[in-house]
Amino acid sequence: MQGMPESLLGLVENFSKLPGVGKKTAERLAIYILQSSNDDVTSLSDALLNVKQNIEVDSISHCFKENDLCINDTPDRDSNILCVVQHATDVFLMEKSGYKGHYHVLDGLISPLDGILPEDLNIANLLDVIKKYKELVVALDPTPQGDTTSLYLIDLFKNYDLEITRLARGVPIGSSLDYIDELTLAYSFEDRVKVK
Amino acid sequence: MQGMPESLLGLVENFSKLPGVGKKTAERLAIYILQSSNDDVTSLSDALLNVKQNIEVDSISHCFKENDLCINDTPDRDSNILCVVQHATDVFLMEKSGYKGHYHVLDGLISPLDGILPEDLNIANLLDVIKKYKELVVALDPTPQGDTTSLYLIDLFKNYDLEITRLARGVPIGSSLDYIDELTLAYSFEDRVKVK
Repeated sequence: MQGMPESLLGLVENFSKLPGVGKKTAERLAIYILQSSNDDVTSLSDALLNVKQNIEVDSISHCFKENDLCINDTPDRDSNILCVVQHATDVFLMEKSGYKGHYHVLDGLISPLDGILPEDLNIANLLDVIKKYKELVVALDPTPQGDTTSLYLIDLFKNYDLEITRLARGVPIGSSLDYIDELTLAYSFEDRVKVK
Repeated sequence: MQGMPESLLGLVENFSKLPGVGKKTAERLAIYILQSSNDDVTSLSDALLNVKQNIEVDSISHCFKENDLCINDTPDRDSNILCVVQHATDVFLMEKSGYKGHYHVLDGLISPLDGILPEDLNIANLLDVIKKYKELVVALDPTPQGDTTSLYLIDLFKNYDLEITRLARGVPIGSSLDYIDELTLAYSFEDRVKVK
């Protein structure tokens, strides 16, 4: 934008790269920063760098870890149950549900058409740790790739003394039955739960 | 959010302070940063600090300046016309309109009820520079405080050889006449323009 000092234009450009931030919002944010205290701006700048400097990926579970501690090392978690997810960021979502077991991140889904085979995923490490657990929860996307990967894991562990579960499929809370697609409805019949 | 590394929580907190950024958006932005390249994050972090370090306020016009150059020092601007605005950030708005003269920032509006008097504003510097200009455009908010300040300036310069104008008031472009308030409509009658 004309009339803006160069540094401000630079910040607008950087803000515009963030998801969901358009040109107008980026300008508004940049002007807000210009008017913020030095302390607030330094704090945001440091917070950005800290995230990249302090957060690593655990070599086994591929969960994020900080100070050499990943979420599976936290006390008070159920160490009998392991939840397999696609991305390390899926862990934050799962935590919101109240799940309190361990996690294992695959870093992808099997997708032969895209050239992603089981050996490209973090499955070798899963084989190393699986014996410690009594239950494996497969929490992958309800897509062809997610289903393929789930089936692969079920087959892989079929001879293990291990309970394997997957997330329930059905009607999302708060939705109206009128707007549910047939496949979801079919799954919610298949997974129906006895209530009496 | 549970399960998030501490540095990520810190970034979420910092993002939440930005205007229009709620908890959910802050989380989404923080996760985006976590997945961005080191270069992109360093670039954003530097851009934030640059804004605070490089941008100063001109001692006379109170416009923002960088590298010791404020917008009034830019060549190819009309040095006969001076636009008075409330905030230094208003300059960015005015620039979008295509205005190409100089600017003077008051840093506020006269508001006796809030204890803001003419001597609290950047008016002494205006008196120093006004003789260089042929026209003064008063571009203040159409509010009681804005109007008071405009009238004060008009009175202050009544004996100067200076044309004084204010921004036209009327129907905003793209709006429907059905939804315009009576006062705006009254102004658009008063400021009506001869077309034939």
